[in-house]
Amino acid sequence: MGWGDLGAFGEPSKETPNLDQMAAEGMLFLDFYTANPLCSPSRAALLTGRLPVRNGFYTTNAHARNAYTPQDMVGGIPDSELLLPELLKKAGYTNKIIGKWHLGHRPQFHPLKHGFDEWFGSPNCHFGPYDNRELPNIPVYRDWEMIGRYYEDFKINLKTGEANLTQLYLQEALDFISKQQASQQPFFLYWAIDATHAPVYASKQFLGTSQRGLYGDAVREIDDSIGKILRHLQQLGISENTFVFFTSDNGAALISAPRQGGSNGPFLCGKQTTFEGGMREPAIAWWPGHIPAGGVSHQLGSVMDLFSTSLSLAGLQPPRDRQIDGIDLLPVILQGQLIDRPIFYYRGNEMMAVRVGLYKAHYWTWSNSWEELGKGIDFCPGQSVSGVTTHTQEEHTHLPLLFHLGRDPGEKYPLSFASEEYQRAVERISRVVQQHKDTLVPGQPQLNVCDKAVMNWSPPGCEKLGKCLKAPESDPKKCSWPH
Amino acid sequence: MGWGDLGAFGEPSKETPNLDQMAAEGMLFLDFYTANPLCSPSRAALLTGRLPVRNGFYTTNAHARNAYTPQDMVGGIPDSELLLPELLKKAGYTNKIIGKWHLGHRPQFHPLKHGFDEWFGSPNCHFGPYDNRELPNIPVYRDWEMIGRYYEDFKINLKTGEANLTQLYLQEALDFISKQQASQQPFFLYWAIDATHAPVYASKQFLGTSQRGLYGDAVREIDDSIGKILRHLQQLGISENTFVFFTSDNGAALISAPRQGGSNGPFLCGKQTTFEGGMREPAIAWWPGHIPAGGVSHQLGSVMDLFSTSLSLAGLQPPRDRQIDGIDLLPVILQGQLIDRPIFYYRGNEMMAVRVGLYKAHYWTWSNSWEELGKGIDFCPGQSVSGVTTHTQEEHTHLPLLFHLGRDPGEKYPLSFASEEYQRAVERISRVVQQHKDTLVPGQPQLNVCDKAVMNWSPPGCEKLGKCLKAPESDPKKCSWPH
Repeated sequence: MGWGDLGAFGEPSKETPNLDQMAAEGMLFLDFYTANPLCSPSRAALLTGRLPVRNGFYTTNAHARNAYTPQDMVGGIPDSELLLPELLKKAGYTNKIIGKWHLGHRPQFHPLKHGFDEWFGSPNCHFGPYDNRELPNIPVYRDWEMIGRYYEDFKINLKTGEANLTQLYLQEALDFISKQQASQQPFFLYWAIDATHAPVYASKQFLGTSQRGLYGDAVREIDDSIGKILRHLQQLGISENTFVFFTSDNGAALISAPRQGGSNGPFLCGKQTTFEGGMREPAIAWWPGHIPAGGVSHQLGSVMDLFSTSLSLAGLQPPRDRQIDGIDLLPVILQGQLIDRPIFYYRGNEMMAVRVGLYKAHYWTWSNSWEELGKGIDFCPGQSVSGVTTHTQEEHTHLPLLFHLGRDPGEKYPLSFASEEYQRAVERISRVVQQHKDTLVPGQPQLNVCDKAVMNWSPPGCEKLGKCLKAPESDPKKCSWPH
Repeated sequence: MGWGDLGAFGEPSKETPNLDQMAAEGMLFLDFYTANPLCSPSRAALLTGRLPVRNGFYTTNAHARNAYTPQDMVGGIPDSELLLPELLKKAGYTNKIIGKWHLGHRPQFHPLKHGFDEWFGSPNCHFGPYDNRELPNIPVYRDWEMIGRYYEDFKINLKTGEANLTQLYLQEALDFISKQQASQQPFFLYWAIDATHAPVYASKQFLGTSQRGLYGDAVREIDDSIGKILRHLQQLGISENTFVFFTSDNGAALISAPRQGGSNGPFLCGKQTTFEGGMREPAIAWWPGHIPAGGVSHQLGSVMDLFSTSLSLAGLQPPRDRQIDGIDLLPVILQGQLIDRPIFYYRGNEMMAVRVGLYKAHYWTWSNSWEELGKGIDFCPGQSVSGVTTHTQEEHTHLPLLFHLGRDPGEKYPLSFASEEYQRAVERISRVVQQHKDTLVPGQPQLNVCDKAVMNWSPPGCEKLGKCLKAPESDPKKCSWPH
């Protein structure tokens, strides 16, 4: 989902009454970022509070390439990483993930081995391979065992876009919350739905209800579900004890537009890029009785802050034996403070850009390659800013491209290198970058090796379902990451 | 000002608390249009309820050219046109215009000859000619007489951007409202401020207060002023008897970006073009006790509707001897109705595009010429949609380019000519266009002839100020309209 996909963020169809209401009752973050312009690394960052380059969710197979966890990915979240649910357990929390995990699908990466107590969902997104007799479809798990596969047992009609998955995820959420309330146990729910990811889907009752086509139908269903979750918390009388945060793991994928792609509002490009459209996200914090209603914050925030903020809410300290990139947002949310901190925009192993205050410096630019563009793949459709949306990887480390995101949120007008404003801002940013690079200890890259043998041929539970498949011989290869 | 310039419409700095509050207390229009992508024709349309091609505010000097009323313009609003204030007089209204008139500056076009009772402002915008000893600066009027000139007596510091004009206009508005309230007289106030038009200005107290630079400072001052006007109405106890509407006369001028240009949000291009960025406008209706708070409407609205709606509010009928393009929005505003009506996008003498429902058909495309582009003039900076943002005038009358503005508000993906959806939509739109063209009676074009002799050399009142200048010999010429 992109920054511009909610009514509260200026989507012109304004079809998200529940999320808009959530914002009206809570706090809207206008300058909130994901940790990567792609799914898996962002989710690893959310749960570890650490940049993908630290937690291993990146590739060194090629320079500045986005990578994730397809089904033949050998790597996943290392045991050495401490995940938010692992830490929350110490404070008595029950942790559940509903939906997409995406931090590796081999047995050792199972979410219940990394702090979660319950799971309903899948290791991967619901995109391919599907309906493919040569390769296993994506399994759907309940806790330790597969209970079926996407497309086979959990239907997604690629022709009509109909699938009732969001409704299943919603019911799981409501049931889990009820159970926790009944047992008076604190809980962490990671509601990781994926309906706006291509192939986009929505339930029958939402199909055709949006001005925006199937993508808008999916957004409406998510919006409706979140409204139901918030109301459920209120009806159970635990809304004042429950902190809720809504955000996304990357900007809208403009390659899926116009039928399956969302909106990044006034921002440049989208998913896969380190322009604002790829990494600035809608974000709303909600906690009635604690967060003043109708608040708006310009705090530079990150999905990694949800790690630190959640620990703080649970009365826990963040780990001290490693660098944590997330910050505790409670002073921002509860007292309206503004904390000075940078935002780093990475693509794989390369820091492409950094934001300090209202300035953003690009050290590398790349939208996508000429070769891909020739094949119709375009991460910036209809947008072309000379020297900025480059189709070769362009280095600017000696003279970064500088934008003032207040005057120029769309990154169209680099500041003049000769201006005093440029000199002053780049000096300040350079110090931040130097410090970041000097202290950076990159993690072991997890997204380098692919092997069809590790795909989900026979997950636990397959026997009961008669769905065990035979894996091929192992044949590990460097994964290819074109973007 | 552009669609994306207010917080309520997704401007990421969210610096318009008063207008956002006005929307929260009133009704937000998301699909509201001006009648032309340029100032004078839009304002003529607002006050006559008629398209510029009917009321004469267009040129036939060249095909599809935007035109307005510079100081050497010979034409202006014809006596045959009936203006909103002329009609409101019949219902006992006192009418005042504060700010920019723009419907001609020669004596016969004076606003007090066209229904207004009072005026504080100027016949033209505050842009050039200025500080020019060869040509007269723009006069500022109080009612019938000039009381000074821009830059000479009403300072605008082009270096710092400082000018206190919005404060003067605000005080005029508050005083007028107080006077009308005291005398229990109904009133129509046309508060036509121009601070966001280049050269952009703001008062000292607002300079440097925005994240968005000088343009943002100007927006903040306008926002603050509107807050003061609304509070004034409330304090006088007449807010429930006063209908207030906020909108703009064209999209943000992207050629003035990034220092003096605003935002058109997710829409394509800006001022001077018939893409959404040029003509879709922020719009808010406010009338406490009548308009339900927090309303949002997708009614296709137009500045011309303010003519018909205002007449309706005053209990008057629109003129029957001519075609009125505006519709009465009261059923929309008070009962939430949706009225089926098209939006026509004109550029000078050519209907470039038409919107019916969520579909928009382009019959002609043109952003601006290659020649201008070569000189650095670009109405779509950073945006380039193949076959859409064309730099030659392209005709599509036989096979219009069709967009679905719900799925594709940014006009990036024309529908396939072969699709059923295209066939159905174009059939429907063609009927609307045919009817429009069959019944169209173009007015006498007013914006064809320029003559330096008609400039404001010696307006009434100049003797008292010692500011009378000598006009040159008359030398009428065809005006040149490059866009």
